[in-house]
Amino acid sequence: MRTQVGIIGAGPAGLMLSHLLHLQGIDSIVLENRSRKEIEGTIRAGVLEQGTVELLKGTGVGERLVKEGSVHHGIELQFNGRRHRINMNELTGGKSITVYAQHEVIKDLVASRLHDGAQIYFDVRDVRLLDIETSSPKIRFRKDGVEEEIECDFIAGCDGYHGPSRKSIPESERKEFKHTYPFGWLGILAEAPPSNPELIYSNHESGFALISTRSIDIQRYYLQVDPSEHIENWSDDRIWTELHKRVDLKDWKLNDGPIIQKNIVSMRSFICETMQYGRLYLAGDATHIVPPTGAKGLNLAIADVQVLSNAMKKYYHEQQTELLTRYSEICTRRVWKAQRFSAWMTRMLHRNFEHSPFEYGLQLAELDLVTSSQSAAKSLAEQYVGLPLEY
Amino acid sequence: MRTQVGIIGAGPAGLMLSHLLHLQGIDSIVLENRSRKEIEGTIRAGVLEQGTVELLKGTGVGERLVKEGSVHHGIELQFNGRRHRINMNELTGGKSITVYAQHEVIKDLVASRLHDGAQIYFDVRDVRLLDIETSSPKIRFRKDGVEEEIECDFIAGCDGYHGPSRKSIPESERKEFKHTYPFGWLGILAEAPPSNPELIYSNHESGFALISTRSIDIQRYYLQVDPSEHIENWSDDRIWTELHKRVDLKDWKLNDGPIIQKNIVSMRSFICETMQYGRLYLAGDATHIVPPTGAKGLNLAIADVQVLSNAMKKYYHEQQTELLTRYSEICTRRVWKAQRFSAWMTRMLHRNFEHSPFEYGLQLAELDLVTSSQSAAKSLAEQYVGLPLEY
Repeated sequence: MRTQVGIIGAGPAGLMLSHLLHLQGIDSIVLENRSRKEIEGTIRAGVLEQGTVELLKGTGVGERLVKEGSVHHGIELQFNGRRHRINMNELTGGKSITVYAQHEVIKDLVASRLHDGAQIYFDVRDVRLLDIETSSPKIRFRKDGVEEEIECDFIAGCDGYHGPSRKSIPESERKEFKHTYPFGWLGILAEAPPSNPELIYSNHESGFALISTRSIDIQRYYLQVDPSEHIENWSDDRIWTELHKRVDLKDWKLNDGPIIQKNIVSMRSFICETMQYGRLYLAGDATHIVPPTGAKGLNLAIADVQVLSNAMKKYYHEQQTELLTRYSEICTRRVWKAQRFSAWMTRMLHRNFEHSPFEYGLQLAELDLVTSSQSAAKSLAEQYVGLPLEY
Repeated sequence: MRTQVGIIGAGPAGLMLSHLLHLQGIDSIVLENRSRKEIEGTIRAGVLEQGTVELLKGTGVGERLVKEGSVHHGIELQFNGRRHRINMNELTGGKSITVYAQHEVIKDLVASRLHDGAQIYFDVRDVRLLDIETSSPKIRFRKDGVEEEIECDFIAGCDGYHGPSRKSIPESERKEFKHTYPFGWLGILAEAPPSNPELIYSNHESGFALISTRSIDIQRYYLQVDPSEHIENWSDDRIWTELHKRVDLKDWKLNDGPIIQKNIVSMRSFICETMQYGRLYLAGDATHIVPPTGAKGLNLAIADVQVLSNAMKKYYHEQQTELLTRYSEICTRRVWKAQRFSAWMTRMLHRNFEHSPFEYGLQLAELDLVTSSQSAAKSLAEQYVGLPLEY
């Protein structure tokens, strides 16, 4: 097989890249080791930045998002028993975020790609990258027991943290940064009407809680727990007791209902520098992981492939290589800012039981500043709706 | 002896309080265990917030400050070998800071108080607070070997971290928060012309450096060192080598010259809650210490006594006790924000050699944000020139 860009991974990064390249008349093939059903059913993030929404809408894959997504103009920060609204829309000159689940984005992208005649190979095995330092890199894999090879001009590694792409870059050529946070998130889906028109981030002395939403019938709530906790220790009753304790106010109670899914995730940060090597370009979780507090994971992946597709457009249509050469530099600066934002939100909102009373006091002072200073709130809002893409 | 307000400590807090009370026709006596010469000669802070300058000028003790102080409209942040200006004046709608040494403020206040006939007792010994829970508290002390007693309506404890005032509050009634930073400052005074019209805060991989100024002939520079370092290990040569390494740019070199003073200070944070007990009110270093990076120590002390003098004015002239009752609450909120700012500046600018490469990356991303985002820079500038006093 031969294509211009071989894309490994059919997550948001890989599918969106394939879609953006297609719009530029650039051919690609997408390989995915999971099934279509699996990628379309896995519950992940749910908050889309203004720029992500604009890109999806502007490139013809936003129809269902516009119909079913929920546009939010603000968020609420709760601490010391009081709730404070951050009016993102006003603070950013009209920007907003949209709550729309990642697997719905995936469904929309898969449907669009297949409608446009794309080649997506699901359930592939044994993906290997070859000759990435040459001008004709190759991807070998097995599909239904048969060994296949794709010859291409470029490989896009969109295959997540555990995929083979990043590991194909020699260790001496990449620097990896890692951090583990002492927090876990117990996430639930519950059958209940929405509790609040906007997301609530609650800093409570027992721990953080996040009140999010999925639809008119299904709500998404999170509780800070120890990352080593086992989900079996958390009965539905215990979850509701803890959620009510952390978010209820005198005149406001959380809506509860049957819990239809629950799980615990740990929180970490990861950055790989470089994001490119030879003819291999990394994007999304393959090259950076953020803790979920800032809701940046999916949005960073989409920003990466926006830069990458532009760089490839310049290469194929204008014979310019400057953007391709600067891909890692452009994305990495933005990634570090998003890591900083995610770490800052995480540390400001979670209860760190290892902290001294002084550190806890600083944390509450930070929340006080952000909810009482226009410029501090504006800085939060601008980062929450998404910093501009700067080249 | 009898007065309305007995003030312990002739630092900026005690002297300014005595001055502000005098302007309201309220009597006070000031006690100080050091000599006048000593308090007028000790080198301390040197950056005055806009509000501090306005208060000094507005109450008739700003004449020399206006003549000799240096008004700064911005500061420079340096990292990754590049310098970035924070235009405080523009970002805060016209505010600025003034570089004028703390001991010069002390000289001006002592001169003014004595000119107005104030009673200031220097070189007192054995200061004790009595009956602070009653409506006629007393201060006992020895002066020239003679035991004296002041009977008053209120006691203001402006006697620094080591003074007897705070310790007179029963331990069960006060909560103390402490933090030690793993950084020390080696400070020098050098005979040299100014190197730069504005302060330079430099984050260098070898450690932080601060380029400040004292006058047209004398400059004030600081180097981050390990807090356990001994000054004997730092020859003048070693100091200059390290300063040049941390702040010089291709086209900019630090001015050096004979070093006329050098010392090392450690950095810590301290907050005492409550700031009031019975008829005792604490202000300044007696109740909070901040690391010097944010230049907030002197300014917090002045803000405290501004609130306290207003509260006493309300009490004596309008028989209202509400502000007195709320004194600690009003000041403490502002103190926590200043602690947060000071800790944030300290952590953003110093090199923490215990940090992982990831944490160091976050730190550089924070500097990148602050120097590339208007709202983040505005938040820094507003805090640097001083948050408004809110009652």
